[in-house]
Amino acid sequence: MKLSEKMKELVESSRRELQGRESKSHDPGRRRMLGRTLAMAGAAGVATQAGAQALEVPPSAKEHGRPMPANEYGMPSKFEAHVKRRRTDVFVNRQNFSDWSMTPLHQQHGIVTPNGLIFERHHNGVPDIDPDKHTFVIHGMVRQPLKFSMADLMKYPSVTKFYFHECSGNGLTDWLAPKSKTVQQTHGLLSCAQWTGVPVATLLEEAGVLKEAQWALAEGADGASHARSIPMKKLLDDALLVYASNGEMLRPENGYPLRLFTPGWEGNTSVKWLRRLKLGDKPWHLRSETARYTDPMPDGKWRQFSMEMECKSVVTSPSGGMKIKPGTIEILGFAWSGVGSIRTVDVTLDGGRTWREARLEEPVLDKTLTRFRLTVKWDGAPMTIASRAMDSTGYVQPTVDDIKKVRAIVGFVQHHNAIFPWDVAASGEVSNAIG
Amino acid sequence: MKLSEKMKELVESSRRELQGRESKSHDPGRRRMLGRTLAMAGAAGVATQAGAQALEVPPSAKEHGRPMPANEYGMPSKFEAHVKRRRTDVFVNRQNFSDWSMTPLHQQHGIVTPNGLIFERHHNGVPDIDPDKHTFVIHGMVRQPLKFSMADLMKYPSVTKFYFHECSGNGLTDWLAPKSKTVQQTHGLLSCAQWTGVPVATLLEEAGVLKEAQWALAEGADGASHARSIPMKKLLDDALLVYASNGEMLRPENGYPLRLFTPGWEGNTSVKWLRRLKLGDKPWHLRSETARYTDPMPDGKWRQFSMEMECKSVVTSPSGGMKIKPGTIEILGFAWSGVGSIRTVDVTLDGGRTWREARLEEPVLDKTLTRFRLTVKWDGAPMTIASRAMDSTGYVQPTVDDIKKVRAIVGFVQHHNAIFPWDVAASGEVSNAIG
Repeated sequence: MKLSEKMKELVESSRRELQGRESKSHDPGRRRMLGRTLAMAGAAGVATQAGAQALEVPPSAKEHGRPMPANEYGMPSKFEAHVKRRRTDVFVNRQNFSDWSMTPLHQQHGIVTPNGLIFERHHNGVPDIDPDKHTFVIHGMVRQPLKFSMADLMKYPSVTKFYFHECSGNGLTDWLAPKSKTVQQTHGLLSCAQWTGVPVATLLEEAGVLKEAQWALAEGADGASHARSIPMKKLLDDALLVYASNGEMLRPENGYPLRLFTPGWEGNTSVKWLRRLKLGDKPWHLRSETARYTDPMPDGKWRQFSMEMECKSVVTSPSGGMKIKPGTIEILGFAWSGVGSIRTVDVTLDGGRTWREARLEEPVLDKTLTRFRLTVKWDGAPMTIASRAMDSTGYVQPTVDDIKKVRAIVGFVQHHNAIFPWDVAASGEVSNAIG
Repeated sequence: MKLSEKMKELVESSRRELQGRESKSHDPGRRRMLGRTLAMAGAAGVATQAGAQALEVPPSAKEHGRPMPANEYGMPSKFEAHVKRRRTDVFVNRQNFSDWSMTPLHQQHGIVTPNGLIFERHHNGVPDIDPDKHTFVIHGMVRQPLKFSMADLMKYPSVTKFYFHECSGNGLTDWLAPKSKTVQQTHGLLSCAQWTGVPVATLLEEAGVLKEAQWALAEGADGASHARSIPMKKLLDDALLVYASNGEMLRPENGYPLRLFTPGWEGNTSVKWLRRLKLGDKPWHLRSETARYTDPMPDGKWRQFSMEMECKSVVTSPSGGMKIKPGTIEILGFAWSGVGSIRTVDVTLDGGRTWREARLEEPVLDKTLTRFRLTVKWDGAPMTIASRAMDSTGYVQPTVDDIKKVRAIVGFVQHHNAIFPWDVAASGEVSNAIG
């Protein structure tokens, strides 16, 4: 008997077997069985009894598949075209070359954001830089200014680290009242990847940092010449000159071929398309340090250089725009902190009156997205779901009211790390419940 | 003064400053400085002294970048088109619909293989399955056969885990003599990702496994109806029904929308496009368990069902086809084990006479690629580099000679986990030195 015939016989015999087994089973028994195992496994229990037709050979098994050239760069299925980065719907962007797009957190599985979906923000379009022509310079208050080609840089010992990356403007549309519909719009200026690069400290060591140097100007080679002042302490501590994310070279919109990466700090300090670090004895007070990326205080003053991203979390499922059904549901979300690792995440179903501890999924790493999960039964009554994270320093994610006590919430306010609630209506519809 | 003018002035002033500083420095001083810091940091020290022209504003900073639609799925830079999966060059594949492509390990950064570069093997083309029409059935020796739609399945509590994935045929062309040129060809049937899915145990619990069930037939919905017999113990232990890798749904060639995933086991037991698990009391002895994926023994018999991938490692840089220069070089590679985590990796530069311990980069996870690194000085004399891994069970990666003592190396031999050497010639050219 040929093997292909053997396979056909296997399919036929299993179909006969299935049919026989089915006639012996009956619904009430099955329901009892399901009830028992559900309680044990916390499973969703949404499977249906398999009828004989369940084993019909699908069309894909009856025809040749698509030939696959070995040098084809893999792409998502055509059935996944709806999974993409998006802008906010809250306001229209009228600047042609200054734009951004947000990660679909509710469609992300695990903690790694695939490279094609990492959020991005650009101020004057995306440059397509030839890495063979790109140079990076360290100058200013150093003993010896140095110039590096990409080939030079990539010969230095590199490190690879998982880190989240978040824009400090993440959530700025939704402080006091619901404006955005989905978690992609409220929290999607957030991604997580495995970044590879050279410690800035290695190259500063080679250039020889003068004692007076306290800050460095990091400047990009993009049309906006985006730049930030970075304290030397951060550069010497854990900052990286990153050239790869998730195993391959950076995508153009994420800074190809080289970006600064400042772990745990607000996104735009990780200057993309990096062309120089100039060391100096004071900050430069650039546009992104005066007109933007500052925090209004209750006394009318503005706080500069608050670059650490504080502990935060959000429920990604169920989240705005979804519709759920009564029964067992898994509450999923992300927690992260710019100053350490996540210690605990609590979840409330009643708008903050009571909390229960969620399960954290390994690995739980420093300054990295941590996935939390909690399986609950929903009886169909309206509820308000939110998560509250605590990090390894003992800092607990605040409410908007907590933040109001120490900062003013006026204008385009950055650094929104408050607890973020979702309402679930009796219909199962989920909506933004901030404010 | 406008901010853009301020930026121009900054650039000008730094250029002037750089020029001034340069006139004060001189080469011998710089060399001394470099020598000192190199010794301290183990740096490559390949930077060049920055001249005044180093700070010339690049063209990309003088023009608008490319506008970036927010719904564009990110792609690699056009300058990275050479980074792609490839077939082996060792023999021509004359089967139109049965093909494979290998991961460019020497171009991979970190431990995550990007989804577009995960190796793939298909036996009858790649099906493009509509997830809304796909069903998965559990039947055979169960109390209640069950059918799941993808929507059903994705409601179950999922887990997300980093695991390597390797074809047991990885390296079969290069046992006794060098055939392949690059590490992509010798070891590229290997990838690592963060996989998301539902534990098979959860669904088996719901279906109710009968006592007699010892094996399950896992069958794909592809044109080849690829199938394998899997022991129940593995299914109940850590096998997953995987639907996502690295944060997004599987790519079509990697099993979209559903595959079995058997951590640490030979790749083709992780059946792609999975449509059923049929439980039985013995294995099915399918083509992939008789004609293929078996190991010839010295006594002329063939060993079946040796599905665990044993501890292995390989140097990915420098590796075949590269050319290096004398000086400080960083030796990079991967180590992995299908039965645990990596405990140590040793590296030899003299063909195995002496070994030194490499540094393992965190996180070091169970059944996951682990990156090792060792910085050495190369004086330009020919050398033979190889790595040797030990896993958490104490098992040490063998030589080909070690394997010859317990197995026969004839035909298309699977499970090649031997130490793999690269020769470095005085010219710096690196070549395959197996055998």
